[in-house]
Amino acid sequence: MAEPKSKNLTPVLHGVGRAERERKNGHRGGVLWFTGMPASGKSTLALRLERRLYREGIMAYVLDGDNIRGGLSADLGFSPAERSENLRRVAEVAKLLADAGFVCIAAFISPLRSDRDQARSINGRDFYEIYIKASLPACEARDPKGLYRKARAGLLAEFTGVSAPYEPPSSPDLVIDTEHGGIDACVEQIFSHAVRHFRQMP
Amino acid sequence: MAEPKSKNLTPVLHGVGRAERERKNGHRGGVLWFTGMPASGKSTLALRLERRLYREGIMAYVLDGDNIRGGLSADLGFSPAERSENLRRVAEVAKLLADAGFVCIAAFISPLRSDRDQARSINGRDFYEIYIKASLPACEARDPKGLYRKARAGLLAEFTGVSAPYEPPSSPDLVIDTEHGGIDACVEQIFSHAVRHFRQMP
Repeated sequence: MAEPKSKNLTPVLHGVGRAERERKNGHRGGVLWFTGMPASGKSTLALRLERRLYREGIMAYVLDGDNIRGGLSADLGFSPAERSENLRRVAEVAKLLADAGFVCIAAFISPLRSDRDQARSINGRDFYEIYIKASLPACEARDPKGLYRKARAGLLAEFTGVSAPYEPPSSPDLVIDTEHGGIDACVEQIFSHAVRHFRQMP
Repeated sequence: MAEPKSKNLTPVLHGVGRAERERKNGHRGGVLWFTGMPASGKSTLALRLERRLYREGIMAYVLDGDNIRGGLSADLGFSPAERSENLRRVAEVAKLLADAGFVCIAAFISPLRSDRDQARSINGRDFYEIYIKASLPACEARDPKGLYRKARAGLLAEFTGVSAPYEPPSSPDLVIDTEHGGIDACVEQIFSHAVRHFRQMP
């Protein structure tokens, strides 16, 4: 991580600290980082998981392209540098949400290992990389937003899987195979992982 | 607000919506935006208020220069354009926190009306501008971090009140006079305002 440009910072003493929030909530805060190809199922699983955790009394909140790209990162395009900056910002917001006591579910293609490693190093503890796995043909067959079709037609530059690379995680904390598993089963797999890790108090 | 560069966005259907979170929490989410000169008392009041709200069962979280400038905005300096971009990002994060059900207390000098107006327009509903008011001589006499001293010595460029302007709010939702009011009284004033507005359910 780069040194902050601003040199006149005092460490923050929050009125309410993370540990105190976690004790009250009955679970830890942290980050579930979903990575995978377009149409692999990241956002769908994220939203289903959010509801599943919420029903279980675990505070959860989803960050995904749809609520970040139109707001915090509205100034960024899809060049490698801009994608990297987008993911850096997401990782920083995820860290704030985790500090506020949430299980933050960040669902982003995040195609490069270096960007995912950066997200992990920004967050440190309680960060889990979850690989939402489906083959390119499977994703392309789904194509719910018609983006693969557009990309094949040359209408979208830098589209992961077509005109930009996807680097699968080398040691993810969890692999979810959405090509061969049903959606409910996939949600339950991640839910079990989340409960196991976030219900365990420090 | 600028059009997002990314054109392939679907509106987010959150697994758990804001209204549902608010009903469960028993209070609305929203933003208390503190503006004021350096050393006017913004961060101190923000942290005290956070604890006061938390004790009352209202989920609150502070964003301030100290937890934003070292992370999300670590790439930004203090030129007018960078300050504006910093505040835009803060406003977007505040919006996410409000959507997640929190009362977000954003404590930033935010010296320009245009930047505060932008923060309000990003957030829309449940946004309150709170002017943390103290005269320049009073702030300079406090100077807990020695920054005014540094700025007077020419060691800090673009320092609000010394080498950069502060535009007082023209119609703030609340004015808190920290020069003539004690800290506990100031906290209670904002607390009352917050309870009145955030406890009222839609």
